[in-house]
Parts: sequence; C-alpha cells; structure tokens
Amino acid sequence: MNDARGGQPITLDRWLGHYALRASGLSASEVRALFAVASRPEVVSLAGGMPYVRALPEDLVRSALESVMTNEGPSALQYGSGQGVPRLREQILDVMALEGISASMDNVVVTTGSQQALDLVTKLFIDPGDVILAEAPSYVGAIGVFRSYEAHVVHVLTDHDGLVPEALREAIAQLRQEKKRIKFLYTIPNFHNPAGVTLSAERRPEILAICQENDILILEDNPYGLLSFDQPVPPALRSLDEDGVIYLGSFSKTLAPGFRVGWALAPHAIREKLVLAAEAAILCPSSFSQMVISEYLAQADWRGQIDEFRGVYRERRDAMLGALDEHLPDLAWNIPQGGFYIWVDLPEQLDSKAMLPRAVTELVAYTPGTAFFADGGGRHNLRLSFSYPTPENIRVGIRRLATVIQGEQDLLDTFAGTGILSLPSVSENVTAPPPDMS
Amino acid sequence: MNDARGGQPITLDRWLGHYALRASGLSASEVRALFAVASRPEVVSLAGGMPYVRALPEDLVRSALESVMTNEGPSALQYGSGQGVPRLREQILDVMALEGISASMDNVVVTTGSQQALDLVTKLFIDPGDVILAEAPSYVGAIGVFRSYEAHVVHVLTDHDGLVPEALREAIAQLRQEKKRIKFLYTIPNFHNPAGVTLSAERRPEILAICQENDILILEDNPYGLLSFDQPVPPALRSLDEDGVIYLGSFSKTLAPGFRVGWALAPHAIREKLVLAAEAAILCPSSFSQMVISEYLAQADWRGQIDEFRGVYRERRDAMLGALDEHLPDLAWNIPQGGFYIWVDLPEQLDSKAMLPRAVTELVAYTPGTAFFADGGGRHNLRLSFSYPTPENIRVGIRRLATVIQGEQDLLDTFAGTGILSLPSVSENVTAPPPDMS
Repeated sequence: MNDARGGQPITLDRWLGHYALRASGLSASEVRALFAVASRPEVVSLAGGMPYVRALPEDLVRSALESVMTNEGPSALQYGSGQGVPRLREQILDVMALEGISASMDNVVVTTGSQQALDLVTKLFIDPGDVILAEAPSYVGAIGVFRSYEAHVVHVLTDHDGLVPEALREAIAQLRQEKKRIKFLYTIPNFHNPAGVTLSAERRPEILAICQENDILILEDNPYGLLSFDQPVPPALRSLDEDGVIYLGSFSKTLAPGFRVGWALAPHAIREKLVLAAEAAILCPSSFSQMVISEYLAQADWRGQIDEFRGVYRERRDAMLGALDEHLPDLAWNIPQGGFYIWVDLPEQLDSKAMLPRAVTELVAYTPGTAFFADGGGRHNLRLSFSYPTPENIRVGIRRLATVIQGEQDLLDTFAGTGILSLPSVSENVTAPPPDMS
Repeated sequence: MNDARGGQPITLDRWLGHYALRASGLSASEVRALFAVASRPEVVSLAGGMPYVRALPEDLVRSALESVMTNEGPSALQYGSGQGVPRLREQILDVMALEGISASMDNVVVTTGSQQALDLVTKLFIDPGDVILAEAPSYVGAIGVFRSYEAHVVHVLTDHDGLVPEALREAIAQLRQEKKRIKFLYTIPNFHNPAGVTLSAERRPEILAICQENDILILEDNPYGLLSFDQPVPPALRSLDEDGVIYLGSFSKTLAPGFRVGWALAPHAIREKLVLAAEAAILCPSSFSQMVISEYLAQADWRGQIDEFRGVYRERRDAMLGALDEHLPDLAWNIPQGGFYIWVDLPEQLDSKAMLPRAVTELVAYTPGTAFFADGGGRHNLRLSFSYPTPENIRVGIRRLATVIQGEQDLLDTFAGTGILSLPSVSENVTAPPPDMS
C-alpha cells in the first residue's frame, strides 16, 4: 500500500477484508512511479498517447464557448439526458458517415470519453470468468476495464493486416471446447493501439462472418480511424453489420480529450440497456462539454481541422521512422498508415520492462509491451508514440533509445555465458501505466 | 423492448442470452414515459431535483472560461490525472472545511459528478448479494447503482432526526444472524433526498459508534449540506471519523451540474483503489470542467453565491409549505431546513404511483415514493421538489395536486365497499425515473 509517488507511509488497510472480488483486478503498476519521473520536462516521452492539442486553433474553441454561453447558457449548466444531447447525437452521425456508417441518432449514446463506453459495455456483458477476445497486443485501457470486471482476456494473433481470421477461428474453437463463454471480440481495426496496424478490407467481412457464425458480438473501438496519413481506412465493421457490432467513437483524438466526450453506437436493444447503465454510472454526460463540441462541429471546418491533425501526425511518424532507420536499423517495426503508434520488436534477449529504468535515466520513456497483454506477453516489444513530441524531440528520443538498447546489448554480450545475465526487473506484474501515458 | 418514448417497433434482442447477470438489475421504469409527458412546458414539475442554475450570474461563468482559455488552454484540452487536477483538489479542501472536515488533497478523488463516486465505491466493495444499509427512503440514483452491482439494499427506519440508531443496531443484528455480509451504510445526513430530514448532532456520534463496533464502512453522501436555510448543519460524519467514512461531495447543487464534477474523500488505502477504478472507468475526469470550476472558486465569491442559492431555495420552500398548508391541510409532511425536497405522507388508501397519470393529466408531476425504496415501500408517499419551479409555479402545482388528491379521495369514497376500489397501477416495478427527474 506504499504510494511510491506520494511518499506516504505504509499503512494497513482497515477495510482489506471488505472489498469485492473484482477489486483484486485493480492493481497499480510500479511503472507508475517511473512514469512520474518520466514526466519531467528533460525526459522525451515516447510513452504517452496524448494528442497534440496545440494544433487546434484556440479561437475555434473560444468561438464555440461563446456560442454556448450566448445561446444555451442555462441548459449547458443543467443536467441533461442520460443518452446525450440530441443535436450532438445527430452530428455524430455525420462523423460516422465518413467511415461508411449509416445509423439512427436514437442508437447513439454519448459517454465520458469512449473509455466509459468500454466500461459500460463490459459491465453489461461480463460475468466473472467470461471470455473477451482481443488482438495480441491490445489497448492497455481496455485490458484494465476487462480485468476490473473479472473477464478472461484471450489474445488472438495479429499481423500487419490486423487480426488473423484463421487464428480467430481456432481460438473460438479451442475456447468452445473448454466450455468457455465468449462474450465479445474487442477490436481496434484502424491504426491499432499499440500495434499500429489496420485490419485489411479483405479480412473485414471474414472477421464478421466468423463472429456471426459463432454468435459473438463485436466491440469495434475506433478512435483513430479518421487520422489516416495517405488513404482512407476501409469501411467500418459496423457499416457492414448493424446488429452484430457495437461501435465506439471519440472526439479525443480528432478534437480534444479534455472534454471527455465519446460515444457508442449499438443495436437498439443493447442501446437501451447502455443508457440505463450510463445513468446509473453518472446520471448524464456533461451538458457543457457536449454543447461546446456540438457548437464546434456546427461552426468550424472540422473536416479541415482533422486534415490539419493528419498532417501533424504524418510528419511526426516520418520523423520517427527516419530516426529508427538511422539509429536502430537492426530492429523491426511496423509502418503505421495513421494514428499515433509504432510497435517495435526487440531482440529476444532484451526485456522492455527491465530496460525501462535505464531508458528513463537516459531521459527517454516508452511503454513496455507487457502493458498491452493480459497474459504476460510483450516482454520483447515496446510501443513508441509519435503523437505528442515535436519531430525534433522524436529524433532526440530515438537517439537516446538507441543508446540504451546498445548499452543493454553490450552488457549482455559482455556477460553472456557468465550466469549473471538476468536483468533487474521493475515488476513482475506490470499492468496499466497511468492514463495520460496510455 | 418497446421504447414508449421513441415509438420504435418492438424488436427481438439477438443478444438476449449474452448479458451479464447484473444487467437484470437495469430495468427501465414505465414512469419514464410519463415523465416525458411531464416535461411539457404546461406541466408544473415538482418531480425533478434540478438546481435553479439561472440564479448563477452568467458573467461569473464567462470570466472563469476566459481565464481557463487564457491561462491553461492546452492543458484544459488535454488528458489529465486520473485522480483530478491538483489545484481543484486543494480548493475542495476549503469547501469541505465549511462542514468541519480536515483532510489531505492526496485523499481526494475528483469524479464525473458524485454519482460516479457512488458507482466506483459500489464497484469496489459489492459482490452480488452483499448488503448495503440505507435510510428508508433513500436516493433513487443510489438504489439504481446498488442494483446494478446486484447489492441487497436494506432500508433502516428514518425519522425527523434522520437515521434511527436503535433501528440501525437491530437491522445489523438481524442481518448478522442471517449471515449476510454488510458492506457499508449509505447515508445522506443533510437535507435528505427524498426525506428532507437532517441527522441530528446527537445521533451522529452514535451512528458512527454503531458502525465502528460492527466494522461497517460509512458512505456519507452530502450534496446539499451547504444549502441550509437557517443554521448550518452539524459537523459531517467524516469530520468525526477519518478512517471509517468515505465522503462524497458535489458542485452540482452549489454551482452547476452541467460540468459533472463531484468528488470522493476516502481513507488512503481506499483512495488508491478508487483512483484505479476511476481510471478504468473514464481514464480521467474532464480537465476542462475541472479547470473552469477551479477558476470559478479562485475568482468568484463562491461562499456568497451559495448564500444566494440558499435564499432562492428558502423562498421556494416557503412557497411550497404555504401552498401545502392552504390546499392540503390534512396531509402530513416534513419541514426541511435546507436542500430541495419535501416528503409527503398520503392517506393509506392513496397510491402515489397509481395516482401519477391523473396528476400529469392535471398538469402537475411529482415523484412517487416507490422510486426511493428497493423493497416496494413508499406507495403512500410522494416527493415534492421545490428547487426548480418558481414560487408562483409551485403554488399552481400544489393547487393542482390538491385537486388530484381530492379527486382520488372522492372516487374512493364513492366506490368504498363496492369491490371496484382498486386503482389502475402504472407499473408493478417502478424503478428509477430518468436522471434529470431525480
């Protein structure tokens, strides 16, 4: 119970025997302490998945705020509908139309970030021990939610074209044989966090067919889909199947996360339950936040602003790829066509978690691959994010990372065969880094 | 699955067999449809617990918004700490000091309204079947959350001085005998929703002692404490016991609910788990909302503004009490010393739920007492809220209510003994009305 961040004394927890069973799924990572160090300005953080909100012109936000106060003051300050502001739900249809989705605003539920939609869907479907299928690797924040409801997360092989259909089929067959209840497939089809890959157009109908045959719901999480660098992403899974998919969207990456506004689009019967669950959890999402976003969408050239963001992130991706080519030519990584992330394979003998303290000492931070697996995988991977640091800082960061990796390899070469090879491990049960780092 | 509001066709739910067990605790009330009718402008609603945000000068909000944009633009738009903005957590200490609480900002967690704190605490402590003790009646939104985690809510007798210590003792003894696991006591000690009563200063240490003896945690929910009409409330339970109480506070009633900002103050070990649960649920609360409130607290005379609100609500309470005296002199009700609510006892033969459609026809709405019980109680009670309508509308509403009640009684008198006495019931399982009505 020692809080490494706050320096609080170790105290016994008087209520230790009182927690629910699910509370044991909530464990703090010791990496948190490291990330606290990593947030010092001299450290180049390639760890966080923060959007670069400075690319959003301030006057667009000011103008939306002004309209809200002038036109909707009292209702922006008041409680609202648990499902969300109708006008915003209607505008969300326009956003989703960009990825081929046609829907009714009646089936949209506005949430406190799409993270809350993840939470509500999990609450609605998962009994302890139920299986959730997910890519290998998967989003750290989703794994955190799934654990908090005592789900059993089963990772499915994922390659450069996304989830591998044959592997999905096999995983389902295996789990069925074990009499496990599979509740849903959680997937991030576009510019995956952390893998950076996109599910190919060819595989989409196949994944849908497999889930349909097996009566498995799909939870399609799509925060990055509009942030493509070259060509648009293939049609959303939801655009191909109205009844079998819950689709999650977010304004956190295409506008700003500080308002905490995301949404779920769900089949009607599920949507009804989602609203009840949302009301139980928070009564209603922030009227003020919703109305600011609604005014922004009504006034600003939001499609043009997304193009701006695309340009910013494309430049940063290129800076990172260039620096990786230059400084770490022996490693393997993917080339993301959008989004925020590059997934790096380390040599077998390197442990990304064990290496992190040394990286932070060298003033660079990344997220160890283990954060993205529920089963201990990912030790030889790390996730690099290019969304927040400037191109120059990205180059500095990769140079430092190369120094760290080189140092680790030299160390290993020196002591190879001496039996004192084991590197100090930060923690055996790394879970989620703090959210602003994910 | 028919949605009475949207006029959607009845559809089969393909995913019916897939929900978690807890999802059965989420049921929509048929009263929802009625409340939709009741939100028409010609209806005087005494049902909602909405604060009168028009009493908040608009320029105070504008000025806070301006400061946020000028001083903290990019960080207000960005992800933040899962625990909440440090400056706001520090200011929250000043708010709680008004009720005698001394605490460390390290133990404060900012939440999306205090409703989210209720959700997180329940998630952290409740396994299916665990008991939560609560006043009789209790807050409809809390009952909703408790049900959504399959808690067993046991109501404890409550009188004009709040929770009755002897009844609490007996309930605990009885439950212990039945080998039930009691997880916490949920209480609203000040200007109770819906009962309107305040736990007396004499009973506070007694309630604390009973819980301490029995190793029962207290969840103290205090959204209305600062809205006293005459004299301040007795010290908060949390001010008398640091380790045994989780305290929930909110800016929804003292500033505006549209920002969705509340907080929990918890013993340190519980606080750590609460932050992890909060991060799983929403990553972090809205930076923007938190910073607006923080600027408001820094710039405005917020204590003076709370005095303004007090004046507004005192005048409305008086209007309601006067109208009740005039039009319904035979009924019984409490005289609240603060807050938003009056709890009315109807004659035994009247059913508040069955009467509601007739009330709405007469253009007045209230909340039936059954919404505030987990066990079917409250049929002969109703809750009237005086927070939102003007004094004049309150008088109109009570006059209409008197007509309805008189009509019901006449009907009963006419048909007494004829065997056709039973009134049509809206629904046998009334649960929560929609949140903006609670």
